[in-house]
Amino acid sequence: MVVVGGGFGGLYAARALAGQPVRVTLLDRRNHHLFQPLLYQVATAALNASDIAAPLRSVLRRAKNVTVLLAEVERVDLATRRLALDRGEIGYDALLLAAGASHSYFGHEEWEVFAPGLKSLEDALEIRRRVLLAYESAEREVDGGEQRALLTFVVVGGGPTGVELAGALAEISRQTIARDFRVIDPTGARIILLEGGPRVLASFPESLSRRAQQALERIGVEVRTGAIVTRVTADAVWLGGEQIRARTVLWAAGVAASPLARTLGVTLDRSGRVPVEPDLSIAGHPEAFVIGDMSVLRGPSGSPFPGLAPVAIQQGQRAADNVLRRLSGQPTRTFHYRDRGSMATIGRAAAVAVVGRIQLSGLVAWLAWLLVHVMFLIGFRNRFLVLFEWAWAYVSWQRGARLITGPWRGRD
Amino acid sequence: MVVVGGGFGGLYAARALAGQPVRVTLLDRRNHHLFQPLLYQVATAALNASDIAAPLRSVLRRAKNVTVLLAEVERVDLATRRLALDRGEIGYDALLLAAGASHSYFGHEEWEVFAPGLKSLEDALEIRRRVLLAYESAEREVDGGEQRALLTFVVVGGGPTGVELAGALAEISRQTIARDFRVIDPTGARIILLEGGPRVLASFPESLSRRAQQALERIGVEVRTGAIVTRVTADAVWLGGEQIRARTVLWAAGVAASPLARTLGVTLDRSGRVPVEPDLSIAGHPEAFVIGDMSVLRGPSGSPFPGLAPVAIQQGQRAADNVLRRLSGQPTRTFHYRDRGSMATIGRAAAVAVVGRIQLSGLVAWLAWLLVHVMFLIGFRNRFLVLFEWAWAYVSWQRGARLITGPWRGRD
Repeated sequence: MVVVGGGFGGLYAARALAGQPVRVTLLDRRNHHLFQPLLYQVATAALNASDIAAPLRSVLRRAKNVTVLLAEVERVDLATRRLALDRGEIGYDALLLAAGASHSYFGHEEWEVFAPGLKSLEDALEIRRRVLLAYESAEREVDGGEQRALLTFVVVGGGPTGVELAGALAEISRQTIARDFRVIDPTGARIILLEGGPRVLASFPESLSRRAQQALERIGVEVRTGAIVTRVTADAVWLGGEQIRARTVLWAAGVAASPLARTLGVTLDRSGRVPVEPDLSIAGHPEAFVIGDMSVLRGPSGSPFPGLAPVAIQQGQRAADNVLRRLSGQPTRTFHYRDRGSMATIGRAAAVAVVGRIQLSGLVAWLAWLLVHVMFLIGFRNRFLVLFEWAWAYVSWQRGARLITGPWRGRD
Repeated sequence: MVVVGGGFGGLYAARALAGQPVRVTLLDRRNHHLFQPLLYQVATAALNASDIAAPLRSVLRRAKNVTVLLAEVERVDLATRRLALDRGEIGYDALLLAAGASHSYFGHEEWEVFAPGLKSLEDALEIRRRVLLAYESAEREVDGGEQRALLTFVVVGGGPTGVELAGALAEISRQTIARDFRVIDPTGARIILLEGGPRVLASFPESLSRRAQQALERIGVEVRTGAIVTRVTADAVWLGGEQIRARTVLWAAGVAASPLARTLGVTLDRSGRVPVEPDLSIAGHPEAFVIGDMSVLRGPSGSPFPGLAPVAIQQGQRAADNVLRRLSGQPTRTFHYRDRGSMATIGRAAAVAVVGRIQLSGLVAWLAWLLVHVMFLIGFRNRFLVLFEWAWAYVSWQRGARLITGPWRGRD
């Protein structure tokens, strides 16, 4: 069988299939599993790229029935059960699609160059580069208006990623680099979080949204709800007739399923996701399963399961089991989500969390967030390094990965 | 006064000038100081980029008389005492040039695209990408000849960097990823070190060259001396009529001073370096000093001081002191190099070192190498992380930073 994608869904499926009587090929166009919930910390210079990534090969080294291939899947042919790759093709008896999602600009893809989103390590390093370069350029800028634009950071989208990014940007300006410049005062930088809906963290209870907003404002973030972005340019964000001059705009708003979904020939939902049966298979194709952000399945409440790591993990495990059940002639089982809660962090000692009926905020929620994220990191080395970076950042107020790398104007 | 370059020379000069009665502007086109002696470890996935880099601003935060600017110097006008920058210009009363060197292809710059050198973090990440991708591509390759070319790694140049790269490549193939693939056997990869002269590590005593070569051969590196590269293409290295098919070629051979030297209007040496007076100033320009890899100065033995970090550091300190002496009307002092020895590492528990008349090799030299390199790293955080990564690598035989990042074929 073939698994496409080594994110949470694909990796946990491959792990569930390890040692089982089935030959598994895991395809990914990256060589690493990425712990996406901490990606914003790479983007904001708190962690290294490799702290939150683990080579798929070494994670699955002992799973002798699993072969990892670095390959990009370009097309799925459900009828002939074949995948077209960037080079060559591969057939399957059972298929598990877990290619994830990327950001959506709601039909304005031309905004992407001005407002990068955050899905891959490359995205994170590009955002880190832009944020750090903005301060460097401001230090050299003589024009007052341009300097203010360089010191204005806009985050579009008030979900967990947007809240986390805005909180981290505020900490950078107010703490990390507060005393590092001679001309500009970084603590005067504006961090603006724009949310189109009526409140941030819309998937959380209202009281926690309010607390998150208060916590953001306390550390210096301007939160604006009901703010619909109508245009993004190289140096401004427009809300209808209002212009906010800003050189750095980060996109944390829309999500669209992997374009691979479009090659299936089935009807997709508005976000490009594949509707699946209760057992996670595609209707009419019991041998093909789609899980995680790439699929959509309505839960008992009638609303779709959210695009969270725990959903992808549990779906990966369910789909893996269903593949084995089919192979041994047993009926497949329906996916049930065990909701262990959700959380978002705002900054130092500030987070919100819901676990069942319990709502947490402040330090307690932050400690819970910390614990859960370290627990789920893959591998001892990553766990240890992340803990160390966090401890060091906590006592020193510094961020360890303040590097500007990437394409340079001149020659090296 | 203005210091150009935040490498060893420029940074230690700026540190020596901290708190002194002089206003210093440090210009660098990067925001970080790079600990170049460990750069090969980033290239071979043993360390993270940020482990060996420190933001110049935060290193010099407490030096209130020092301003750090991210800027590229494009031209020096010694006559009018002005520097043309990528944007704008800046005047100086005293100048300290420490812009370093990059690799030289001896007039064959067209080889660079096939055989990248190792000077910046971007170089290191590109090399890491190529090395890891070669194994991934080999795993998918069906053509036997092409697969062998993918599993052949050639390092050109048998100086310390070349020896260290070749040793690390051998360890990767023989240990780190030995059991991670299902189709290929990484331990069968060929690692070839080509040296044009009669022995590797030519700047070391002959007996240590021999030991280094033996140590390399023991871990599986084919060492070829007297091997003059005449051509490099996308999939081969040519030694006269002999062709070595290899998809990954790394360049560790020539060094050329920063092109900034050419804008000075003084006669340079064959490597493009600026000849300086015994006090490190340019003849006829007592207010302008050039130090480190960008300059050339003959020592008491008649041969130029080597392009090593300790030379650059001591020259930075001497030049800084000479600037202060000039300002207070005192005569400048001649540069004297205190040679504390040199060392190169080959791999796990294998290195060579010369300290005065003492020659060390094997485990003792390796421990000395380890100690010295950790001591000279900037900042507690970097020291700790590097020590941790090394300890972890030592016990686990793994490398922590096995990430392939960078430009991808497809869309994200």
